[in-house]
Formats: sequence, structure tokens, C-alpha cells
Amino acid sequence: MKRAVFAGTFDPVTNGHLDLMQRALRMFDRLTVAVAQRAEKGVLFSQEERVAMIREAAASLERLDVEPFSGLLVDFARERKIPVIVRGLRFVSDFEYEFQMALMNRRLSDEIETVFLMPSETYTYLNASLVKEIARYGGAIDGFVPPNVAPRLREKIAKAP
Amino acid sequence: MKRAVFAGTFDPVTNGHLDLMQRALRMFDRLTVAVAQRAEKGVLFSQEERVAMIREAAASLERLDVEPFSGLLVDFARERKIPVIVRGLRFVSDFEYEFQMALMNRRLSDEIETVFLMPSETYTYLNASLVKEIARYGGAIDGFVPPNVAPRLREKIAKAP
Amino acid sequence: MKRAVFAGTFDPVTNGHLDLMQRALRMFDRLTVAVAQRAEKGVLFSQEERVAMIREAAASLERLDVEPFSGLLVDFARERKIPVIVRGLRFVSDFEYEFQMALMNRRLSDEIETVFLMPSETYTYLNASLVKEIARYGGAIDGFVPPNVAPRLREKIAKAP
Amino acid sequence: MKRAVFAGTFDPVTNGHLDLMQRALRMFDRLTVAVAQRAEKGVLFSQEERVAMIREAAASLERLDVEPFSGLLVDFARERKIPVIVRGLRFVSDFEYEFQMALMNRRLSDEIETVFLMPSETYTYLNASLVKEIARYGGAIDGFVPPNVAPRLREKIAKAP
Amino acid sequence: MKRAVFAGTFDPVTNGHLDLMQRALRMFDRLTVAVAQRAEKGVLFSQEERVAMIREAAASLERLDVEPFSGLLVDFARERKIPVIVRGLRFVSDFEYEFQMALMNRRLSDEIETVFLMPSETYTYLNASLVKEIARYGGAIDGFVPPNVAPRLREKIAKAP
Amino acid sequence: MKRAVFAGTFDPVTNGHLDLMQRALRMFDRLTVAVAQRAEKGVLFSQEERVAMIREAAASLERLDVEPFSGLLVDFARERKIPVIVRGLRFVSDFEYEFQMALMNRRLSDEIETVFLMPSETYTYLNASLVKEIARYGGAIDGFVPPNVAPRLREKIAKAP
Repeated sequence: MKRAVFAGTFDPVTNGHLDLMQRALRMFDRLTVAVAQRAEKGVLFSQEERVAMIREAAASLERLDVEPFSGLLVDFARERKIPVIVRGLRFVSDFEYEFQMALMNRRLSDEIETVFLMPSETYTYLNASLVKEIARYGGAIDGFVPPNVAPRLREKIAKAP
Repeated sequence: MKRAVFAGTFDPVTNGHLDLMQRALRMFDRLTVAVAQRAEKGVLFSQEERVAMIREAAASLERLDVEPFSGLLVDFARERKIPVIVRGLRFVSDFEYEFQMALMNRRLSDEIETVFLMPSETYTYLNASLVKEIARYGGAIDGFVPPNVAPRLREKIAKAP
Repeated sequence: MKRAVFAGTFDPVTNGHLDLMQRALRMFDRLTVAVAQRAEKGVLFSQEERVAMIREAAASLERLDVEPFSGLLVDFARERKIPVIVRGLRFVSDFEYEFQMALMNRRLSDEIETVFLMPSETYTYLNASLVKEIARYGGAIDGFVPPNVAPRLREKIAKAP
Repeated sequence: MKRAVFAGTFDPVTNGHLDLMQRALRMFDRLTVAVAQRAEKGVLFSQEERVAMIREAAASLERLDVEPFSGLLVDFARERKIPVIVRGLRFVSDFEYEFQMALMNRRLSDEIETVFLMPSETYTYLNASLVKEIARYGGAIDGFVPPNVAPRLREKIAKAP
Repeated sequence: MKRAVFAGTFDPVTNGHLDLMQRALRMFDRLTVAVAQRAEKGVLFSQEERVAMIREAAASLERLDVEPFSGLLVDFARERKIPVIVRGLRFVSDFEYEFQMALMNRRLSDEIETVFLMPSETYTYLNASLVKEIARYGGAIDGFVPPNVAPRLREKIAKAP
Repeated sequence: MKRAVFAGTFDPVTNGHLDLMQRALRMFDRLTVAVAQRAEKGVLFSQEERVAMIREAAASLERLDVEPFSGLLVDFARERKIPVIVRGLRFVSDFEYEFQMALMNRRLSDEIETVFLMPSETYTYLNASLVKEIARYGGAIDGFVPPNVAPRLREKIAKAP
């Protein structure tokens, strides 16, 4: 059985993330979505909220599980004997950062391989930061995030100082 | 009459910004310079100061008006029935960020088009952050910003903690 | 009246080119499509054929004319008093080549400005060379080129040695 | 069983290609190496020679087969029911070309997914054209190509006009 | 005698930095390593600690001196009559930032030239921020930093809140 | 004495090349300009003509010599005991090709180091191919090439078929 891990902050999960999960499930038997803690990065949603939102949004995807994590991704993968890290690639700037991370991870653990997938071009422009900025100014976010996420994002932002 | 909007933080306006305004005025009948609030980003000058400095520096440019704005640029443009967003493009890294923003804006409002202009190569290296860093260390900034901006930048930085 | 020129080889015109023409017509009063000769580059269609295919495909677009040209684009624009060159921008590699051409053109004629537009993300992947390669191997090209172009491309390739 | 295809010209196969094959075999159950004909591109070795050299060089790799192909890669994959195309990614320029090809292939056949792998950084600089140029001038190529390839490359180049 | 300066934050110095120092010493008679203060950037080690760690790590390199600095690098170089700034270049994103800095520095002082060197590909992935992140999670950092730096980094991070 | 080599096709030498030679001479004691044969690449000027044009154009530059070469640049450098290869860097696309060449050259000969210099931003757009294309269509080339080159380029192009 081939397993892979797809890690990120998912603050919140977008339709672009879900597209990538579906693509990864076409070629791996089981996909673990690893939700990073990122306490220091000023996330909008808590790690528990982010895990819960992905679980709901991806409920129809079989062979997928969602887990919180902190620490180094290679350690998370090694402990679970997951040999593949899946990453999305949209832009050259993505590419260079990803390249650097992948080389570093390979150095830290040579038995773990990183593979890159391309999201649908419909989601090229999407990232969670832009979606939050649009929500902050009352823009329409419904096409960008799963149906369960949109109302929570609006609610969370209304409460933010 | 063809109108366009050129938005930014302009903290402070540089000679590169003025070069782009002049180029945009060659092809549009009226240009609105939209000065973003960016309260959260730790700007050096207040929005009012930034608007005032551009008004002075661009006083000789006809068919140009300067306005403060907050919120989403596409909303600002739509309310004023401005169908074109003008952006400067100097670097590959600019390009990718701009591309992402332009696709997102197109998704938010399909009747607004983004066009990219190239500043004079004399200003390729110029950006407001570098100019502020140089001013902070007492470097000569007179060739980088308009004559009305240089003394204010020096004064503002002298007062900064 | 604001005029612009959109130049290329168009061997053959694709749906991506037509998308850009429509975007340019939103902001300019008149658009001239300039079809380069490129005798040396081993084009598949003659310049006359390429001009004719664009005229048919863009017949419904008002305020657009199609003309053959050879020589330097800045000379073509200057003779017709067209002050703006329109270019499509999709990739970083596009960007750098375009940047170099635009700087060179500005050097050759300072009164002509280059503006860059972004095609729909649906056409990001499209270019005439790929379409010809797909046609060569009998792949389906109907979603990539206008309806009048697809049969001619198949016919032309069938005849090619 | 998860299958993947790794296509290229392989004129000739390098150690960088072999590194990628090994990485792909870690995550797919079977890998088909598809050797493109490229008659028009002026290859040094015939398609038969290129296939034979890979078969020898990769003889120790189980679960790998080598096949000649012409036509569109997506057709090749579809006929063999291979759902994944594997590509190596080293540079930004690779990335953009690969991105364009992958989007085009996805458009031609939505059930085929492209994944990108990173070769060892030891092989970042390696490509078959550079190796041929070095061989042409009598440079040492033994660290760049498999042991069975080096003498054939020297011999082939000695005979070339 | 040809002198050059190699500036950075070095928080902490890595094996990649040392590789570049050795390469620079091959072509310049004397190399000054200038350690930036960066009080505002939240460095882990104080400027004195960073200077001391480089001095120890590079003790075997002749013709090299290490100095703290604050202010503009061009002023530092000009005061010491050092006509060359040495920079490492690994990635496209490095390249654009470096390009912009180098053009700005040239504008500030035309007699100072910037040269770019390439680190060994073994160190392509290395940067001080990644090393600190790995150390924070207890990962093995010994291959990334000089022997005198690894224990201090572990100790410093253990004490950090 | 520190020596360096600056290699290229120089078909023909441009003002951008001369700018780089002057910058290299600021930091090396002696610069050898190596003019590649490139018989296969369809150059406009013969190797002898290209060498002669550089010698004239750079006659006022002391400590510079111009030599024809064929073969591998690292062999040329090694035979003359020149430890440094100088390259110009203007664009990201330059950067990646140069990076690949430099890594390959380092692999071929570890005692030779490549350094990258940046031309004046005035010459960013300049390359010999564009200059030839402009000359072909009768455009003004005098600002792009040295005074001795412009008439020869016009004459050579007038004679070309």
C-alpha cells in the first residue's frame, strides 16, 4: 500500500487544497493531511478548528485522514512510515521554496521522497491569505472555499479585532 | 473616456511611481492614484501624508487625481466605474505576485482588466523600502524620491524611535 | 482615439490570441493585429493564410483590423501613429523575453509604450507550437483554435512532408 | 498496482535520468520508460540505440520496462492504462515548460496526472546536450553517464562529421 | 592587493557561508566578513556571538577578518577602501533581490562592484532559518553548521522561550 | 596576479560586452576575452572578424587581451592557468543557464571558479541577436555597438542573402 502525506497550515482549507487532495488520491492508496500548529505565525483558526474544517470538507473522500502535527514533517512521516510528501506547485516562487524544503527534507531523511502535483489552473490564483483579505473587506468568498468554511470564515473575521 | 486606477501604499512615493503615472497617462484619459490605508503594515507616513505628498509631487500632471482608499481595489474601481487597473512590473517576483492578484481580481470582478506597464530601467532597482533603509542610515536619497518627499522622509526618520 | 497594435506570428491564431484581442478592445478604441512575415522561421501557413484566418475568426470583433507586416514593429506602429504595443504575458519566461523586447523598442522609439495583458487562465497552457504538435499526431485540437482554423490546420498538416 | 511512465529523448541516458527512475520506483509499482523518436530534432543516437542503452544501464532495476514511442505521450499512456506521467524538475525554466506540457496533457486527457520529482542535487547541472558537447571536445564524461554509455558516446562522436 | 567584503546576518554561520568564503579567498587577496547588527530582525544570537562564532569557525582561513557593522554596506566598504562586494547566489529569488540590492549599491557608490559566486551544490538547500527551525524541533544539524556552532545553537534554542 | 577569462561568441561585440569588460578589469589584474568559434551556430561574422572588432573596440583598455578559442572553456582556462571565468548576468533565464554551465565547469575542473557580474542597467535589454535583427530592418544601431562595429554590421547585413 502506497501512502503519502500532504502537509500545510490550512488557515483555512481552500478549494485548491481539496483539488490537490483528490489528485493525490488518484495515485496513492492512502493520504494523510497533516495540519501544522504554527502557533507563532498568527493563524486565524486554531489547529483544532482547522483540522475539523478539513474533516468536514473532505468527508466524502475515502482513504484520507486528517491529523494535527507539530515538529518536523519528516519526523511525522517517518514515525507513520509514510514514504512520500506531496506538495502543490503553482508558481516559480512556490517552486524555489519547495525545492529548498524538499532538498533539506531529503538530507534529513533519505528514505522520504517529495512529489509535486499541479492544482487545476482554476485554482492557480488561490491562496488562504488572499481569501482572508477578501473576507476581511466583505468580498464574496464562496467560490474559493468549501461550503462549510465560508460562514465560519465570515464569523471569525467579524469577531477579530 | 478611458479611465484607469494605479493603486499602492506609496510610503513614500518614489520617482519610479511618478514615471509609471506618466506612462499610464499616455494611454488613458484619466488616472486615479489610489493610496491604500495599510494600517496593519506599519507604514512610516499616515495615509493623509502619503496622499498629500503625491498630490504635490504630481501637481504638474494633468488628468490625474489622488484618493485615499481602504478595502478591496476592485470595489474601489467598480464604484468609480474605472475599468482598468494599472500595475508596474519590474521583476519576476513582482510578476508572480501581480499575476495572482490580477487573476483574483478578475475572478472578483470580470469587468475590470489589469494592465502591466514597465518603468524606465533607470528605476528598476527602486522601491520604497530600500529608500527608507538608505534614509535611516543617512544615505543620499535625493535621486530616488521627488524633491518634496526627500526632506520629509529625513525628518520623519529622525523622529522615529 | 486610443489605438494599439497586437503583433505576432499567429501560425495559426489560437483561442488564447482571440481572448487577448477581446481584452485589448475593452481598453483601446481600435486594435490593429499585425501578422509578422517570419519567412525564415519555417512557418506552416503563409502570411496571407494567417491574415485571412484571423480576419475570419475575429470577424465579429468591431474596431479591429488585421494587417501583414515585415520589418521592425516600432516602425510599423510609428508609421500608423499607433502609440501602444499590446503583449500577452503568461509565464516568467514570456516575461523576460517580453521585457527585453519592450526595453529595446522603447529605446528605438520613446513615444511607443508597451502594455502587458493576461489571457484567461483557461489559455495559460496554449501556444501555437503545441497545437501544431498535437495536430501532427492526430490529437483533438478543436478546443484550442477557432472553428475556421481547426480544419485548415488538419488539412495543412496532412499535406506536409 | 500503480503504474507510471517516464518519457524523454534520452540522447543518451545520463546518470541523472537513472537517479529519477530509481526515485520513481520507490513510489510506483511499475515504471515504463518511453523513448521518444524525435526524428526531426537531429538526435545523435537512433531510437533503437537509445532504447538499448537504457535497457542495459537499468538492467538491475526491477519493475521497469523500456519502450520506444512516437506520437503524443498521453495517447501512449492511455493505451497502456498508465495514469501517471513522471517528470524531473530541476530549474525554473524546466518548471515553466513542464507546467505548460502538464496542463496541455491534462486538457487532452483528464484521467492522466503529471507528478514532478526532484533529482539528486548532484545531477542538477546534468543534461544530455552538455554531455554531448563535452564529449565532442574530448572532455571526461565518465561521471555523467552510465558505464555502458560512455564508450558508445565517444565512438559515435568520433564518427560524426 | 584586491580586497572584497562578504556581508550577512550569519545567525548563525553555516557550512554554506564557509564554502563561499573559501571560494572568495581563491580570487581576492583579503576578505572581510561583515556581520550585520539587525537588531530589529529578531536574531537569535547577538552580533558579538555571531562575530565570535565565525572567527572560530574560519580560524584556519588566512587573509580573512571578521567585523561587526551597522549602517549601509557601501559606506562600510568605502571607508575601508574595499572595492568589491561578494554575494552568494543559489536561487532565482536570491538573484532578483540581489540584483536590486546591487543596482542600488552601484547607484549609491559607483566605485564599488558586486560579484556573485555560486556555493557548492551540496549547500544549495541550506539557509540559517531552516537550520534554526530544524534545531528547534530537535533535528540533527551537525552536517549544516561548523562544529563550534552546533552545540551553541542547541543551547541557545533550549533557553529560548 | 589575478587573471580572469570572459568568453562568448561576440557576433558582434556590443556596448554591453564592453561595459562588462571594464567592470571585470576593476577587480582582476588581467582579462582574456575568449572568442568562441561556433561554426555550427550560423554566426554572421567569422571568428577572425569578431576577434578583430573586439581588439579595435577595446584598444583603450589596458591589461586586456583577445584570443580565439574552440573546445571547452575550462580547458582553455586551465592551459593558460586562468583560475576565474567571468560571466554577465542580466536575467533569470541567463541565471539558470549560467548556473548549469558553472556547475558543469566546476565538475570538469574544480580549480576554476565562475564569478558573475552585472552590466549597467542601461544595457539590460541588449543582446547581439536583437542588434542584428534591428540592423536587418534598417533600424538605428549606433547606440548599441561600438563605433567601429556599426558600419561593418550594416555592410555585412547588406551582403547577406
